[in-house]
Amino acid sequence: MKATRTVKRILDNYEGDNPGVKGNLCRMLMEGRLRGTGKMVILPVDQGFEHGPARSFAANPEAYDPHYHYQMAIDAGLNAYAAPLGMLEAGADTFAGQIPTILKANSANSLMSDTAGKNQAVTASVDDALRLGCAAIGFTIYPGSDMAIDMFEEISALREEAAAKGIPTVIWSYPRGEAVSKDGETAIDIAAYAAQIAALLGAHIIKIKLSTDHLELGEAKKVYEAQGIDVASQTARVRHCMQAAFNGRRIVVFSGGAKKGENSVYDDARAIRDGGGNGSIIGRNTFQRPRDEALAMLGKLVDIYKGAD
Amino acid sequence: MKATRTVKRILDNYEGDNPGVKGNLCRMLMEGRLRGTGKMVILPVDQGFEHGPARSFAANPEAYDPHYHYQMAIDAGLNAYAAPLGMLEAGADTFAGQIPTILKANSANSLMSDTAGKNQAVTASVDDALRLGCAAIGFTIYPGSDMAIDMFEEISALREEAAAKGIPTVIWSYPRGEAVSKDGETAIDIAAYAAQIAALLGAHIIKIKLSTDHLELGEAKKVYEAQGIDVASQTARVRHCMQAAFNGRRIVVFSGGAKKGENSVYDDARAIRDGGGNGSIIGRNTFQRPRDEALAMLGKLVDIYKGAD
Amino acid sequence: MKATRTVKRILDNYEGDNPGVKGNLCRMLMEGRLRGTGKMVILPVDQGFEHGPARSFAANPEAYDPHYHYQMAIDAGLNAYAAPLGMLEAGADTFAGQIPTILKANSANSLMSDTAGKNQAVTASVDDALRLGCAAIGFTIYPGSDMAIDMFEEISALREEAAAKGIPTVIWSYPRGEAVSKDGETAIDIAAYAAQIAALLGAHIIKIKLSTDHLELGEAKKVYEAQGIDVASQTARVRHCMQAAFNGRRIVVFSGGAKKGENSVYDDARAIRDGGGNGSIIGRNTFQRPRDEALAMLGKLVDIYKGAD
Amino acid sequence: MKATRTVKRILDNYEGDNPGVKGNLCRMLMEGRLRGTGKMVILPVDQGFEHGPARSFAANPEAYDPHYHYQMAIDAGLNAYAAPLGMLEAGADTFAGQIPTILKANSANSLMSDTAGKNQAVTASVDDALRLGCAAIGFTIYPGSDMAIDMFEEISALREEAAAKGIPTVIWSYPRGEAVSKDGETAIDIAAYAAQIAALLGAHIIKIKLSTDHLELGEAKKVYEAQGIDVASQTARVRHCMQAAFNGRRIVVFSGGAKKGENSVYDDARAIRDGGGNGSIIGRNTFQRPRDEALAMLGKLVDIYKGAD
Amino acid sequence: MKATRTVKRILDNYEGDNPGVKGNLCRMLMEGRLRGTGKMVILPVDQGFEHGPARSFAANPEAYDPHYHYQMAIDAGLNAYAAPLGMLEAGADTFAGQIPTILKANSANSLMSDTAGKNQAVTASVDDALRLGCAAIGFTIYPGSDMAIDMFEEISALREEAAAKGIPTVIWSYPRGEAVSKDGETAIDIAAYAAQIAALLGAHIIKIKLSTDHLELGEAKKVYEAQGIDVASQTARVRHCMQAAFNGRRIVVFSGGAKKGENSVYDDARAIRDGGGNGSIIGRNTFQRPRDEALAMLGKLVDIYKGAD
Repeated sequence: MKATRTVKRILDNYEGDNPGVKGNLCRMLMEGRLRGTGKMVILPVDQGFEHGPARSFAANPEAYDPHYHYQMAIDAGLNAYAAPLGMLEAGADTFAGQIPTILKANSANSLMSDTAGKNQAVTASVDDALRLGCAAIGFTIYPGSDMAIDMFEEISALREEAAAKGIPTVIWSYPRGEAVSKDGETAIDIAAYAAQIAALLGAHIIKIKLSTDHLELGEAKKVYEAQGIDVASQTARVRHCMQAAFNGRRIVVFSGGAKKGENSVYDDARAIRDGGGNGSIIGRNTFQRPRDEALAMLGKLVDIYKGAD
Repeated sequence: MKATRTVKRILDNYEGDNPGVKGNLCRMLMEGRLRGTGKMVILPVDQGFEHGPARSFAANPEAYDPHYHYQMAIDAGLNAYAAPLGMLEAGADTFAGQIPTILKANSANSLMSDTAGKNQAVTASVDDALRLGCAAIGFTIYPGSDMAIDMFEEISALREEAAAKGIPTVIWSYPRGEAVSKDGETAIDIAAYAAQIAALLGAHIIKIKLSTDHLELGEAKKVYEAQGIDVASQTARVRHCMQAAFNGRRIVVFSGGAKKGENSVYDDARAIRDGGGNGSIIGRNTFQRPRDEALAMLGKLVDIYKGAD
Repeated sequence: MKATRTVKRILDNYEGDNPGVKGNLCRMLMEGRLRGTGKMVILPVDQGFEHGPARSFAANPEAYDPHYHYQMAIDAGLNAYAAPLGMLEAGADTFAGQIPTILKANSANSLMSDTAGKNQAVTASVDDALRLGCAAIGFTIYPGSDMAIDMFEEISALREEAAAKGIPTVIWSYPRGEAVSKDGETAIDIAAYAAQIAALLGAHIIKIKLSTDHLELGEAKKVYEAQGIDVASQTARVRHCMQAAFNGRRIVVFSGGAKKGENSVYDDARAIRDGGGNGSIIGRNTFQRPRDEALAMLGKLVDIYKGAD
Repeated sequence: MKATRTVKRILDNYEGDNPGVKGNLCRMLMEGRLRGTGKMVILPVDQGFEHGPARSFAANPEAYDPHYHYQMAIDAGLNAYAAPLGMLEAGADTFAGQIPTILKANSANSLMSDTAGKNQAVTASVDDALRLGCAAIGFTIYPGSDMAIDMFEEISALREEAAAKGIPTVIWSYPRGEAVSKDGETAIDIAAYAAQIAALLGAHIIKIKLSTDHLELGEAKKVYEAQGIDVASQTARVRHCMQAAFNGRRIVVFSGGAKKGENSVYDDARAIRDGGGNGSIIGRNTFQRPRDEALAMLGKLVDIYKGAD
Repeated sequence: MKATRTVKRILDNYEGDNPGVKGNLCRMLMEGRLRGTGKMVILPVDQGFEHGPARSFAANPEAYDPHYHYQMAIDAGLNAYAAPLGMLEAGADTFAGQIPTILKANSANSLMSDTAGKNQAVTASVDDALRLGCAAIGFTIYPGSDMAIDMFEEISALREEAAAKGIPTVIWSYPRGEAVSKDGETAIDIAAYAAQIAALLGAHIIKIKLSTDHLELGEAKKVYEAQGIDVASQTARVRHCMQAAFNGRRIVVFSGGAKKGENSVYDDARAIRDGGGNGSIIGRNTFQRPRDEALAMLGKLVDIYKGAD
């Protein structure tokens, strides 16, 4: 499919990458209702691993079925669907070629004691991604955790192998652990830092959380104040995070976090759009609603990214 | 052997898998007295590793002999027999081709201090399974243990290799360790979570324990209560665990735990059957009884799964 | 992109393949103006290797430039573009993700003496295909050549590696060599045999030449006559070749051969369509015409496959 | 499934093999209507490669479809179905686990000149067999061909790899080539020699042709006459070939050759049975008949091997 | 060093290549007196292998010393120096980093009978090139030789490895062998074909010989005449060869052949320059002259490429 000028400009930023990686990025950018706009809405369904099945799916029991999410991503005209190995395999044949998939290659769970540290298990490989026809692999890092160095090294090795085989890498960069406070996890200086680390690790797509105007690190706070960096509005904070992502040379999508009111979801999307972000990665806010409501909400979200709202 | 419609429907759920994996699943589903019903009774004998020989076999000394268990599984018309490497090797030639075997690829033991953490040793390989003609490999994970990440990564790698060579994976998903209380090990929220993790790791067959109506995790408890999830009866709890296993897209067998009264065993089986579970994996309750009693009990169990009781 | 029912039915025939292979087949079937119809028009440009540059491109000198062909395939709304390594590399970045590409992994040349035998050089690898983001690899075999056994063994090994990594294989099955006469190269019994061999070697897409009603092999001739196999019309011959391709379970595209009159090209396409073939692979007849004429001709060809002519 | 005493006695002869190999032999011996008898009827469909599709399938056009043959082998209650890679793949998922399959790993074709020598192309691997869930690999050798040494070395390497992974090897031992006359190809001394070579190469199942009372080799002829070896009847010749197969320690099945009258097929089977052979491998005589006739013929053949006719 | 616009435009043509390959191309294009012009003069010294030492060096005995050639390339301000392994190693330390080197990875010799075929020995590896700090590897192919398929396969594999490690490939494409006449070796249709084959094999720099207006191949001759392709002058022939090199998307340098008069060397260079070629690769005409004469001649050659003559 002929790529738009906007998409080509984005691909040009991935200048160190081979045509296979760019082709898969193009596949995601040219898919669904946002194709060609440079904006993305991605459906991630890894909460079953992280929070357990009932917390994830009981509100909308159809969502226990892996096929439900594939169909949702297709019917809503999204750009991609992300999930762990088992979840993807359970629908990979039925939906082969119909929606770009992102194989989430590591996963957290809620059944770990504090002493175990903040970490995730690597549960899939690049060969799994090829076999399942995935358009990318996904990987979470926890900047701020004492396990962060292990996680950085794991994704560095996986990314190298994946990129050589034409598979881009999406990094979920989620600050948490011994070195950040609870407020710090969503502080703007930390969010920007998380985007920067992901970019430096070679992420092709960066996923971070929307942030607050809190400033966590003392040394950083001084600079933000001295330089008068605008972090007052969500739009300004998104803009600042895009700077941290190589001045916009990397695609950044923002996550919605816990289920919340619809208007709040739309306000977030407008801030992402106006701040120059590339889109949303929105899981629980999708699949914990009844299917019709979810489709309506995703439809409106897409409209916002198209600038129509 | 011509597969029944029921078995074909089950195999269709394994859509990401190659014909080798499906063929071995079919072999187990089409074996024994329950062939074609979609139900399974599996005999596992790994207690010698976990509890020592006397605790496992002294009550019925014939059971010290590995041939005893092969013969039991065959004579009782079971679907498969699972054991560690040495146990399988000691009868593999005599019983070659006569009963599908599951090579238990990791094993716990009782000779570890608390500080060693909850973990198991990997004691067999996929090539061992091929050489011994096994229909599957088996692997235990301990969600809740601080060693869980290691265990998840071990089984992910083994499973990838096994599936590529046509060998399915059975995951024993047994919550224990630092993050779960004693009651929590059999709590319904934890059991469902254990099933979900195994499914996400790519298990072809999931083995979990029957659960109680206890709810272990605070966040989960809120959801179970808010959504009114029925966990009052064992049947309801089995049904909920099947939801957690990709809405029934994965085979789940339930374990009987410590030796108990016969009636209790039968009640469990009825609950599994009525809740839509696929069957029982029943070790100590089998081999710690005299052979005739064990055969009678297994016979009745099979009858229950056939709906005849 | 949601696949049509027609495409899903085709994919179902590739039941031994993983979702990666099916996804790439889907990508080609859902591309361009014929997307969703189950029909394909593919542009192959490997004549520079086989016949030299002037014979291939002098009639339309723009075609010396590799970008020309990518652009042609995109602008004409074709399903895929096939070429040798160097040709693909020279445009792989500019056109990344915009048209499915087929890496032609072996190539013939006209600078070989008769004693060298009919053979091709393997000039690219599966890893090249992944790196360049290709949707398939292509490979020529020469049934009838004394080198055929080598060629069959080469493609068997390449195909196994490619399929494991989610890459389908297109086999150009072109009878020539010591065991077939000049007339035999396009005889119907030989064409059907060529399709059968490609299918048995595991080709996902088979490319053969349109055939004549000549019968080459004595033993075959007896059977064609005894069974009254209809080979009188091109449509009947296409239908017979589809039988030879596992009764239509494999995609078969037909090649146009040397440049010829437009009407002849269209008549060929109608015969392919009416005989149940999947489409055309049309090189010289495309790029040896001026761009406008070529686009008009491909446009009409697509219309024919859509049933509109 | 509990093996019969007869089957166990046969398995005991494979004393150098691991339980995986024996398990797969058992699977074939315990399948279908002849299960447990130590007799086998195998359906091979590799004629499409060797003779082309029309000569193979035009007499019964349903047979162009790979599913047809799987279904035939299952419905007729045969022991196994053998075919080349593409043929097996095209039905491997639909029929997974329902009939033991033999992956024919090399294939001949009729499009080779005399100067190319008698040889076959290796077109599949042991990993293919595992992935497709096959119970064995098959391989043809041509004792008497100047390419025989290459073929012996190829199968030796493949067999070693297969046996290590629990996959038995079936050798089609078909004398032809520079060192044997046309009559010699079916001479009894040559047939016995072919069985012996296959056994020495480590075949688990040997497939040879029924022979005539012709004696091809001068040195052999002297011995046959001096020792008064009885080769007068087909039964006697089968008995002699079983001697050549390690005095009956290896399973030997006999091929039917070109399509012929039904009575002739039955007479052959009675000779095989009475001479101590293990059964028939019968392709063209099966699938070139209408399905009903083929089922009736196979039914009668099975009855003969059961001793009922 | 900042690359010129001209050089950047050339590098842009290598769009399928990684930054390592482009960086090494840039290194050569930005070296010496022609840096930044897009033109190159390369010194190759592989005649010792091909013709023996006395034929190569006796006319100017200083040239027996490997250091002599390094020094010459540096002093004359050339772009690169190409030689076989031993020759490069003997000066690699002294001149490390001072002149880009090209490791000639295969070599011909004059000590082969006609029956041995036209071929070269592979005598160095990509790892050798990395270890010696080379800017490229070089490789000769003989289109027209019955060994050509082997040579194409060798360079395909070497090139893939080299490019993955950031090393570009220079292909010496020299027609000779069974399929071309003596006149054909320098015929313009063959020269253009040789350039095309090298480009299709993925050469980053193509080295061909200047050609005559002879047309070797009957089929080609027809096209050259019908299309009125201008091959009358050397300039026109160079221009045609550049078309064959992907319409100028690949760097092409031309070789001078046997030692000849200075004016002839200069005329050649002017034709290369005016026809759009990228430069000269000039061995014997350099080192078989006394050093002062050689420096003067190379100086003048550089001036011609700068357009100053």
